[in-house]
Formats: sequence, structure tokens, C-alpha cells
Amino acid sequence: MSESTTPKLLVSAPVTVRWGDMDAYNHVNNSVYATYVEEARLQWFRSLDPHWMGEDAAPILAALNTNFRKPIEWPAEIVVEMYAGRIGRSSFTASFRIVDRNAPEVLYAEGDSVLVWIDPRNGKSIELPPHLRAALG
Amino acid sequence: MSESTTPKLLVSAPVTVRWGDMDAYNHVNNSVYATYVEEARLQWFRSLDPHWMGEDAAPILAALNTNFRKPIEWPAEIVVEMYAGRIGRSSFTASFRIVDRNAPEVLYAEGDSVLVWIDPRNGKSIELPPHLRAALG
Amino acid sequence: MSESTTPKLLVSAPVTVRWGDMDAYNHVNNSVYATYVEEARLQWFRSLDPHWMGEDAAPILAALNTNFRKPIEWPAEIVVEMYAGRIGRSSFTASFRIVDRNAPEVLYAEGDSVLVWIDPRNGKSIELPPHLRAALG
Amino acid sequence: MSESTTPKLLVSAPVTVRWGDMDAYNHVNNSVYATYVEEARLQWFRSLDPHWMGEDAAPILAALNTNFRKPIEWPAEIVVEMYAGRIGRSSFTASFRIVDRNAPEVLYAEGDSVLVWIDPRNGKSIELPPHLRAALG
Repeated sequence: MSESTTPKLLVSAPVTVRWGDMDAYNHVNNSVYATYVEEARLQWFRSLDPHWMGEDAAPILAALNTNFRKPIEWPAEIVVEMYAGRIGRSSFTASFRIVDRNAPEVLYAEGDSVLVWIDPRNGKSIELPPHLRAALG
Repeated sequence: MSESTTPKLLVSAPVTVRWGDMDAYNHVNNSVYATYVEEARLQWFRSLDPHWMGEDAAPILAALNTNFRKPIEWPAEIVVEMYAGRIGRSSFTASFRIVDRNAPEVLYAEGDSVLVWIDPRNGKSIELPPHLRAALG
Repeated sequence: MSESTTPKLLVSAPVTVRWGDMDAYNHVNNSVYATYVEEARLQWFRSLDPHWMGEDAAPILAALNTNFRKPIEWPAEIVVEMYAGRIGRSSFTASFRIVDRNAPEVLYAEGDSVLVWIDPRNGKSIELPPHLRAALG
Repeated sequence: MSESTTPKLLVSAPVTVRWGDMDAYNHVNNSVYATYVEEARLQWFRSLDPHWMGEDAAPILAALNTNFRKPIEWPAEIVVEMYAGRIGRSSFTASFRIVDRNAPEVLYAEGDSVLVWIDPRNGKSIELPPHLRAALG
């Protein structure tokens, strides 16, 4: 992939911030950003295949790197955008951006994640499911 | 700092995993690791100065990078070790390791974080408090 | 109020269930129902007055009683309905129902809550704000 | 059971409050009390039988009623005491008290819960496991 290639947008998932997402700082707690990214990821998996997770194949998160750009305060409507990155045999990277739904130029956080497909029965990595590989493009 | 220098251990915080930390995978949810690291960080801040957070000075997390090495299952007793990294004018990096309290060779996760000290009244970065700089030393 | 009077509907708040709301049972964790009810309550407070919480007046939850009728599984869209109950000098009760947004006859949970208005500076109860009393009807 | 009978203490579970348990009020969020009670309940189940939950028998929470007596602020060490109540064929009630570990006269919350044993394969209630019935005494 040349550097000029625009990453493929995999999903743009709307999420509503809950009052309880905030911590004693009156901002959304840092740990909840991982929940927002998780929600986008799982909505995307499920949109590809209703049986995205099974007894013999499931994704696990191997790494999550988040840069917090701007605090989020309730009430807020956000969007989690997820983009395809490098694709390997059993894993792929996906970057993400968390922006305001009503003002997409407001960037709350950005980062990337590494997902690995495993066989839950033995914890070993397996080849990415074909429907996933196709969707990653 | 030469590469052979051992990073300074800032805190070794015991945390008890709760059943509710697990998700539908029967493992501790990825977002909860950020909570474990937060708990270690805040226990450390508080040990340095009971008034670690005030109207004119407070830390914010600018980045959190986590590599998930091994799933955690309830019940478990873990320890979050936090180590000093680079120290700047208003920020510092700290790496962390999450290990099993009863089997410290079992590494559940490792990563690093970037902390910035700000004035909560205007959101601007400020110099690291002297007691913190001394402790990072 | 005679027993035949229909309770006044205060708010009907849509909430989207997150994958992370589920626990190791593959159902929404019981503690999250309190978060759903909280979200409805705070959306309602805020709709009455943007400055619903201040330095001299804030609501606290004195009691929460929940009957869990049917497990909730992700993905799901729910609605939290909140109804006025008894109104006192500084407190009121509100009952709630959590139903499926797309099938309102599906009742996931029901219960009631007791809210008390206090002065956060001293923790003492205060009279219900007039705008709230008016809204409770 | 005569009213003078002291309820049987089932478990006295220590829990450490996390900074992240607090919400924008700077107090432990109401929903987290359910997590504290859950932790006590599951520690107790597990102490009775390591295989307390299986494919053919599992407890579900049918009701949870909580009276919030005093806000909890981090840092705090609490104890969740759980007491036996009425015992039925497939369900039992258990009351609870959340107190300060270092000052047991400080009562943070109290309430009761209803637990039902079911067959997870069909959701039907089943007889309470003998080891549980014996422990409820």
C-alpha cells in the first residue's frame, strides 16, 4: 500500500455518551473510550456475519493505543470511525477516530488497535475468516 | 539515560479482580485494564501528596498504550507495577506491567502512559509539581 | 391521589445497550440497569432546567428497588420509562419500567426509586426546586 | 422463624473501592453498589463449591433493593455482609449491609436481594442445590 492511499473506512458507529461514563473529573473516564471503540468493532463484526463469534473462531484484542485529544462531557453524541490497517495471516490492525456527531471536526481521541483471530478452545491463532478478509479489502 | 539503566519503580499496587470486570468472553474486559492502571497511578499520586489534585493543578492522561498478553479470569489477585519514563516540563511517561500477585512471572499486560499536568481552570499545561518531579527522580 | 389514577409519565428515554454491558453470563449485568435508570433520570432533570445541578442544590438517590423480569442481550434498543410517584417536601418517588424499544410489550425490568434534593455543601435535604415540583405535577 | 432470631451471616466480603467507582458527584456511583453486592455473593457461592455455576445450574438475581445511607468516597475499604433470609424451593432472599472496614459502625448501604436457581439451558427455575441449602441453614 502506498502512503498516499486513503485507509478504508470499515464502520462509522454512533454512540451516545451516558452520564455514568463520566468520572470524578466531570469528563468521560479514559477506560470508557475502550468501550466506545469496542462497540464500533463489534457492531462491524456483527454486520459482516451474524455468527461472527463462535466456538471455533473469535477475535481478541492484542493491543490498544489511544491518544486522548479533548475531554468528552455528558451530554454528547459521538461517532467512532474505524479504518483498516495492515492485514496479516491471523491478525489485522485498525485505526480509529472518535469525533463529535454534530461537529465532526471535533476530535476527541484517535489511536489504533491490533485484533487477532483465535480458536477459543485452545487459544491458538487461526487464519482470518474469509468474510473478514474480504471486508478489510 | 543509558539503555542499561533500570527504570525506577514508582508503585506496585495490588488490585483485586472483581467478577463484574469480566465480559461475555469470561475474561476481564479490555477497558478494565485502564481502570487497573488508573488505580495504581492515583494510589501513587496520593501517596506523594494528599492534596495531589486541586483547583489549580491536576493530571490528565494524554495517551495509554496497552499490549494484552494473557487473559485474566476471576478470581485473581493482580499487581500493577508502574515505572518512571521520560520526564518533561509538564508531562512524563510511565510504563506499566500487570502481573499475577501470586505468580509474578505471569504477565497479563504491559504498556505505557503519558501524563500531563494542567490547570483545570483553563486546561493549559503547567510545570510538574516539585514533589512529583522529585519522586520521578 | 386515588388508586385508579394513572401515574404521570415523566420521561421515556431511549438507551442503546452496549456489548460491554454484558457480563460473563452473556446478559446485561444487573448493575447496568441502575445506569440505564440513571440516564433516564438525568436526561429528565436536564430537560427541565439546564442548570439542574448546582453548588447549592443537587439530587441524590436514596433508594433503588429493581425487579429483573427478563435478561437483556446485546444488541438491543431499550426504553426507560419513568413515572411520578409520591411527592414530599424534599423528596419524591419515581417508578420505572425498562422495555424493548421495538417491542414495548417486552418488559425487562421494573421498580422504583426515591430521590432526595440536598444542599451539597452540607448534605442537608432542601425543598424540591419549584420547576421540579411543577413537572412532577 | 421468630422475629428474635438473628439472621445467619453468610459471608463478610472485603472490597476495595476504586477511584473509577466514583462518578461526577465525587462519590461512588449508585450502580457500583450492585457490583459490590455481586462480588460478595459470588465469593460466597464459590466458597461453597468451586463448580457453583455450570451448564445445568446457575443463580440469577431476581430483585435487588438498595437503601443508600451515606456516600462512599475513594479511598475506602468496605465490607459487604450478606445474611440469609427466606428460603424457598428454587429461590432465597439475602439481605446485605455495606459498612466501612475500619469503622464497622459506619453504614453505607443496606438492602436485600432475591436469588433464583435456574437451568441455563431453558431458563426454568430448579431446586436449590443441596450444598447451598445446607449453607443457608
